[in-house]
Amino acid sequence: MKLVTLSHAGAEAVGAVEQQDVVVLPPPPSGHGIVGWLQQPAQQLAQAAAQARANPASVLRLSEAKLLPAVPRPGKIVCLGLNYADHAAEGGHKKPEYPSFFLRVPSSLAAHGQPLLRPRVSDRFDYEAELAVVIGRRGRHLDEGNALEIVAGYTCFNDGSLRDYQRKTTQWTIGKNFDRTGPLGPWVVPASELPPGAAGLKIESRLNGQAMQSSNTSNMLFPVVETLCLLTEVMTLEPGDVIAMGTPSGVGYARNPPVFMKAGDRIEIDIEKIGVLSNPIVDEEA
Amino acid sequence: MKLVTLSHAGAEAVGAVEQQDVVVLPPPPSGHGIVGWLQQPAQQLAQAAAQARANPASVLRLSEAKLLPAVPRPGKIVCLGLNYADHAAEGGHKKPEYPSFFLRVPSSLAAHGQPLLRPRVSDRFDYEAELAVVIGRRGRHLDEGNALEIVAGYTCFNDGSLRDYQRKTTQWTIGKNFDRTGPLGPWVVPASELPPGAAGLKIESRLNGQAMQSSNTSNMLFPVVETLCLLTEVMTLEPGDVIAMGTPSGVGYARNPPVFMKAGDRIEIDIEKIGVLSNPIVDEEA
Repeated sequence: MKLVTLSHAGAEAVGAVEQQDVVVLPPPPSGHGIVGWLQQPAQQLAQAAAQARANPASVLRLSEAKLLPAVPRPGKIVCLGLNYADHAAEGGHKKPEYPSFFLRVPSSLAAHGQPLLRPRVSDRFDYEAELAVVIGRRGRHLDEGNALEIVAGYTCFNDGSLRDYQRKTTQWTIGKNFDRTGPLGPWVVPASELPPGAAGLKIESRLNGQAMQSSNTSNMLFPVVETLCLLTEVMTLEPGDVIAMGTPSGVGYARNPPVFMKAGDRIEIDIEKIGVLSNPIVDEEA
Repeated sequence: MKLVTLSHAGAEAVGAVEQQDVVVLPPPPSGHGIVGWLQQPAQQLAQAAAQARANPASVLRLSEAKLLPAVPRPGKIVCLGLNYADHAAEGGHKKPEYPSFFLRVPSSLAAHGQPLLRPRVSDRFDYEAELAVVIGRRGRHLDEGNALEIVAGYTCFNDGSLRDYQRKTTQWTIGKNFDRTGPLGPWVVPASELPPGAAGLKIESRLNGQAMQSSNTSNMLFPVVETLCLLTEVMTLEPGDVIAMGTPSGVGYARNPPVFMKAGDRIEIDIEKIGVLSNPIVDEEA
């Protein structure tokens, strides 16, 4: 069952997606918003959704729901760069021996449908289609046998990047953290409904309907299991943390001629069995 | 008046430091923990401390208080690399035209006095003495005339770094985000009690009592005002965000022979008019 985070009756809530509807759920037994519900057994979640559906005030049209980023305030957002061989090659990078980790801050996130901001100071706004992993349980020093146990689910991410800021220094971080440039959603699909590590899924981006990136999550150099093992050598992963797994080739800056997003454009990230994350672009107000 | 965050009677609290005592304050009128109190007028803070002092249960010895990181869960921790010319030079870097921004996650923080963890996977644990800026109000697109208005106060930071992980790829982030390697504290000094931008303050690190770094905050290539202006071109700064202003020369990896921290060592960060942040080192358990 797909879950969304939404603003409902003036508060943040979690909803279950049922075809064209969103059924607003009560707060999960454990707290923790969407991650709390994802950690419940599927049967308990289905029961809560059925009970909520009985109250007409709890049922909205999905198209009218005010969605928030699928995980609205992750404790951390860890991103991988150069995690598809073809994308590494298009930027002139060799196949890496270790992932290029960097971080994003929650203020850079956006919701499905929310207009992304092309900032005042740069017109080099690029898309990056990515699989995002949503962490459900604490984990440190995981191994290949247990790493996937901490994953609550998966969603789509667009690692929106201002390429000139990304390359002002050797550190990409600042170009990856402009306000409202990284949509996360539309919903989280529980890990139990997808192949292990969300492997083997087609991943695509489309700009104004035209395919720009098209690959498969099995082409990652560091798949989800290995990434979780490497990350938890370093840090404790906690419920609500998000890991963005890097992007395949076809990004705008590496095209000839380069393509950047501008006001009026629409960018979509489509991952098989997960869904389509779609956002229009607007200019930040002067 | 210096303020600490501490664990008191099973909950997180804010305390006012009065010589060798900590006076535990009630929650601030505005919420937001230590930042809430820092935003109150000095007179109101002094009045709250005087009232709290009347209750003996609210007064602890500072040496017995269970301190937490001065800001325990910053919404974001933005760090500057290569922000002192001498430190940039010791790493073989030219004077930069733009700051090298990267991020840390809250799980990498530690409190004053808390043992820092030399991780299992690396013995290249290095210190970096830094001034930390604590943000008190939202700010976007600030200019030189108003940037300092959003600063609530200043504290000490040790940007503890695992140098081999820092250099596994071009992105330093992973070497800067090991669990419990970045102490922040011991307290926050309100901006009103320091020179504008905390300029002109001696900054030093000492390893087992021996001075390793010794410089002045006026030697920063990008001072606090300019950093706030550049950052808020990109992102909204919010109450409780922390900015770590980079470190001067004398770090361990650049010494001949190199010096790294090991179990049994004690590292101190000393900033004039702010205080001394002191931590022992222990090995992470196997």
